[in-house]
Amino acid sequence: WYGSGHSKISPEQAAKKKKLERLVSSDTFPDNLKSVAVGCFECHGLNRLAHSDNFDHQNFKINVIVSPDDCGVCHPVEASQYSNSKKANALDILRKNPVYDMLIEAAVSIKEINSSGNKTVKSTEHTRNQTCYACHGTEVKVMGRQTISTEIGEMSVPVLTNWPNQGVGRINPDKSKGSCTSCHPRHGFNIEIARKPHTCSQCHLEPDVPAWNVYKESKHGNIFSSLGSQWNWKSVPWKLGKDFTAPSCAVCHNSLITTPAGDDIIINRSHDFGQRLWVRLLGLIYSHPQPKNGRTYEIRNSASLSLPTSFNGEIAGNYLISKLEEMDRINSVKKLCTSCHGTFWTNQHFSSLDKTIRETDRMVMSSTNLIIDAWNKNILDRINPFDEVAEQQWIIQWLFYANSIRYAAAMGGPDYAAFKNGWWSLNANLLEIQRSLKLK
Amino acid sequence: WYGSGHSKISPEQAAKKKKLERLVSSDTFPDNLKSVAVGCFECHGLNRLAHSDNFDHQNFKINVIVSPDDCGVCHPVEASQYSNSKKANALDILRKNPVYDMLIEAAVSIKEINSSGNKTVKSTEHTRNQTCYACHGTEVKVMGRQTISTEIGEMSVPVLTNWPNQGVGRINPDKSKGSCTSCHPRHGFNIEIARKPHTCSQCHLEPDVPAWNVYKESKHGNIFSSLGSQWNWKSVPWKLGKDFTAPSCAVCHNSLITTPAGDDIIINRSHDFGQRLWVRLLGLIYSHPQPKNGRTYEIRNSASLSLPTSFNGEIAGNYLISKLEEMDRINSVKKLCTSCHGTFWTNQHFSSLDKTIRETDRMVMSSTNLIIDAWNKNILDRINPFDEVAEQQWIIQWLFYANSIRYAAAMGGPDYAAFKNGWWSLNANLLEIQRSLKLK
Amino acid sequence: WYGSGHSKISPEQAAKKKKLERLVSSDTFPDNLKSVAVGCFECHGLNRLAHSDNFDHQNFKINVIVSPDDCGVCHPVEASQYSNSKKANALDILRKNPVYDMLIEAAVSIKEINSSGNKTVKSTEHTRNQTCYACHGTEVKVMGRQTISTEIGEMSVPVLTNWPNQGVGRINPDKSKGSCTSCHPRHGFNIEIARKPHTCSQCHLEPDVPAWNVYKESKHGNIFSSLGSQWNWKSVPWKLGKDFTAPSCAVCHNSLITTPAGDDIIINRSHDFGQRLWVRLLGLIYSHPQPKNGRTYEIRNSASLSLPTSFNGEIAGNYLISKLEEMDRINSVKKLCTSCHGTFWTNQHFSSLDKTIRETDRMVMSSTNLIIDAWNKNILDRINPFDEVAEQQWIIQWLFYANSIRYAAAMGGPDYAAFKNGWWSLNANLLEIQRSLKLK
Repeated sequence: WYGSGHSKISPEQAAKKKKLERLVSSDTFPDNLKSVAVGCFECHGLNRLAHSDNFDHQNFKINVIVSPDDCGVCHPVEASQYSNSKKANALDILRKNPVYDMLIEAAVSIKEINSSGNKTVKSTEHTRNQTCYACHGTEVKVMGRQTISTEIGEMSVPVLTNWPNQGVGRINPDKSKGSCTSCHPRHGFNIEIARKPHTCSQCHLEPDVPAWNVYKESKHGNIFSSLGSQWNWKSVPWKLGKDFTAPSCAVCHNSLITTPAGDDIIINRSHDFGQRLWVRLLGLIYSHPQPKNGRTYEIRNSASLSLPTSFNGEIAGNYLISKLEEMDRINSVKKLCTSCHGTFWTNQHFSSLDKTIRETDRMVMSSTNLIIDAWNKNILDRINPFDEVAEQQWIIQWLFYANSIRYAAAMGGPDYAAFKNGWWSLNANLLEIQRSLKLK
Repeated sequence: WYGSGHSKISPEQAAKKKKLERLVSSDTFPDNLKSVAVGCFECHGLNRLAHSDNFDHQNFKINVIVSPDDCGVCHPVEASQYSNSKKANALDILRKNPVYDMLIEAAVSIKEINSSGNKTVKSTEHTRNQTCYACHGTEVKVMGRQTISTEIGEMSVPVLTNWPNQGVGRINPDKSKGSCTSCHPRHGFNIEIARKPHTCSQCHLEPDVPAWNVYKESKHGNIFSSLGSQWNWKSVPWKLGKDFTAPSCAVCHNSLITTPAGDDIIINRSHDFGQRLWVRLLGLIYSHPQPKNGRTYEIRNSASLSLPTSFNGEIAGNYLISKLEEMDRINSVKKLCTSCHGTFWTNQHFSSLDKTIRETDRMVMSSTNLIIDAWNKNILDRINPFDEVAEQQWIIQWLFYANSIRYAAAMGGPDYAAFKNGWWSLNANLLEIQRSLKLK
Repeated sequence: WYGSGHSKISPEQAAKKKKLERLVSSDTFPDNLKSVAVGCFECHGLNRLAHSDNFDHQNFKINVIVSPDDCGVCHPVEASQYSNSKKANALDILRKNPVYDMLIEAAVSIKEINSSGNKTVKSTEHTRNQTCYACHGTEVKVMGRQTISTEIGEMSVPVLTNWPNQGVGRINPDKSKGSCTSCHPRHGFNIEIARKPHTCSQCHLEPDVPAWNVYKESKHGNIFSSLGSQWNWKSVPWKLGKDFTAPSCAVCHNSLITTPAGDDIIINRSHDFGQRLWVRLLGLIYSHPQPKNGRTYEIRNSASLSLPTSFNGEIAGNYLISKLEEMDRINSVKKLCTSCHGTFWTNQHFSSLDKTIRETDRMVMSSTNLIIDAWNKNILDRINPFDEVAEQQWIIQWLFYANSIRYAAAMGGPDYAAFKNGWWSLNANLLEIQRSLKLK
């Protein structure tokens, strides 16, 4: 905390910085906070009536968890943008969607099999917390209180379940969604950490979302690995070509980026991490336009499943952004690319990404057709579409291989398009699916 | 060597440092060593009668290999702790255990198969050296002498077999066990290298022991990757919160760690790397309490196999530490955790690890039951329990997937609990085992 | 560009440096270039008649792409060495070789399979560009012109196909081969980036060429990761033991390396990256002596296939370097190794590599024999030797696993010899091939 900005400046002072240098997004602050440094109680004492995790500590009422709503007292724009994102809704995205719920069961349930056949035991909350919910977030609830002994005597503290967790969609005891510490680790709240790709890499990694892996083997990643230690990671605003010479994740996805002189905005800061994106590379089960908001469990495809595409490739258009919105977003991002690359180069890059999207979707469709055919012929049981060998081979076709290739195309990481979970795997696994269905 | 501490200080001077700053653990030194810097002959000339790798070099008697016993002249506490560890015994752990020996054969033997069936050729010593023994250590023996020409004329030098090798359990020509250079690379003996996780990562990596991989994707690893270059890696003692703000492997596993002021010990240095640990996450074939000493080949389970657990899950309790000892060790480590984290947070973390251990062991048991059933029905041949397709699928169930999930739970690396050799693989592979047995 | 050497010095000044410090290899330069810094037009304006990608830009004739022939105006030795290498020919190596062409089809074609069987659709140029050709290079051609609007008005620019690409064997609009920017990213041309292993790691990575992965887990890689940020990456010549204390890729493979004092050459610079190597670890399908030149598509083995070895293990000796040349190259490299390691240590290391090569080749032969037998018995169809499940398992045997083990032996990365695509996989996959043939 001593090394953090919070220890060095009061909200009121922070608000006096020049527009592009400001990190607080509110102009007014509660009287008791505005002129003091941001210490323990300034954050852990906020909104205590909303916090079921509040406890007495030397006559102060302390919340165990500082939530996005608390951070939003000084950073309301960020809190608000975030709350609408897929990240904030990441837990509900999984548990409120019956399709994903079945997929999770296929992945993490404890199966007991005896010699006469299968017996699946339902997954435990614990294992969900350790796997999917570790990144997506848990619902942290207060389950009574306990007395613990400390150096200053006994204390009665709340008992939290599904904790510790720092997933991006954590539901907090004050009902807010998210966990700022996912990217800004307590208590340093270091913008350097949030801007470095290691932070994103904790969740966005192979085999399902190989963003970090592809980045590392891309030219951008190479330059970051080679020269990143010489860059200015703390400068606000972040000046392209001056503070850094190749993008990290944050540059393209959410940071405020300006020209080298620091006066012209190239692209604005956003804490809605999907807000700059037009296409969703993560195929569910095909790639598709970004959803209109972060509550993807509200989506219904033509077969009434909570999926943004149908098995036949049709998109759930009502829930996804329009062509026009897609074009707007592409153009915003291109402004960033063309700060270093030529216009023609940039256009070709994105047109090439489009082709990859179409080809990988077509490959996924081939495998889906095999599975649907097997369902229709009762070779596979469609009640749970995810729990047989061939079905699981089909899952990795879209969740691992097609995704890898698309991320590779987006960032220029050739191996993830080729031999490392790429086209090689996509082709070989298609033959495996076919063989599995034949052997049944 | 010029950059090393050895070039800058004599043992006598080194022993005069304040207690917590000392790196030599002896108070007395041989007369000829005590007041000079630690140069070539000071190390390569020790205990020459014990060294069968000794040779004449310009009238000096030189040992090719400097062994832990040699280092122990000035660092006796470290040498003694190390000699009792699993690391020092790592070669014998493999080759004196018939079960592991069969496992090695299954892994590294040269198999020649013709159209009529299998023919297994026994593994070569060479391939064992390049694979398992590369980390575990080889037995370096002197096999006669040879004459080589050098710039200063001809020299007669010992011919060493199973060399070069720097495995942790190397058996040296003076009969000592271990290789200090595994972690303190010659001739810099740089504490910075030993403390950085890259050193541990040479051996402790996926798919069997994904400690490094999980660390990298954990919050601790993220902070190390983002900020580690700004930390003080050479300070002795190593001051938590001042010299570093997130642990590397050495912090939790063996370094002397003090409070920020450097005067209070949080946890003591140990070169017995298992000494702080209570549970052994590496399932053989289930997780179990740490062995009482490093000679695990002495263990006998209830079926008289040299394994710390039986196939039915029973532990070989006589050879493993007691519940009481487990509690002592947990509490020591918790003292380290609670230097940064709250007590409740820390307790929940370890209780969550316990649950993961139980659930993964249960999953391994499911697969073991399938294999035992197949042995009983002669679907598989139990003479060598490791050499058929289904058996090898069973091996990766406990050696790769269950281990990955446990390491992920211990350090908070979600993907290794989920899609990357985690629960996804544990479940999918169980179906594969079942299919393999059906297809036989 | 402002940070690059090109902005700070004219060719004439650069040529006046001491011999070992020189980066330009020509002594004479065109009059209009010799006394000015190397700006935009100095490179983008060269050889314009050869450049079909030339266009008008404010009355300057500009080439979109700067090619090795252009760089060769000041760096002719480098351009010439490179042009003879496998790297320069990397595209033709693939597309002019019918065997590799079939392999590519097996890997990246879009397969559509319906319930009655296979239907393979030929791969698209696009997907080849995104996968194999991303590293190997594309043929960039001018396909007419288009008018684009810019801040300074409309411009007519060439339309390039198969672009962007920065593969090492790119064929440029001036017919030259290669892309210097692969390793010296525009416009910094930073020798630091080229010398750091992250650059090589963009293409030389697992599962097929795990050079980077093995390096990372080797002792050399550990020391690089731990201490590399303290080394001098820009010094020319590069002084072993002074500028760095463990090799990166460039040290062993192509940089000019001198003694610590900087006056004695240990090994000369070469931009023909195969020139120091004697054996080719990358098995096609067995390891073999390096080819005499980079045009490996000219090779014919005893079965008239464009492969450096036959399926029975015979090498295509006429196209490969002689035993004598092999010995010369080994001795040059040993001079580098013995700058840090003893002679005996070094000899043992390479003799151990030899043994690994023989054992892995023998294992590959076992699998090839199974496949040949299946072809002979019409269990598999040999017309396309790469498109059935068992054949693809055979491919990964030599392309992934045997290669991994050899790279591991060359650089000392134990896991890639063992559990990570190593002997474990080589053995387990051999059983899988056998099972696949039985199930057919």
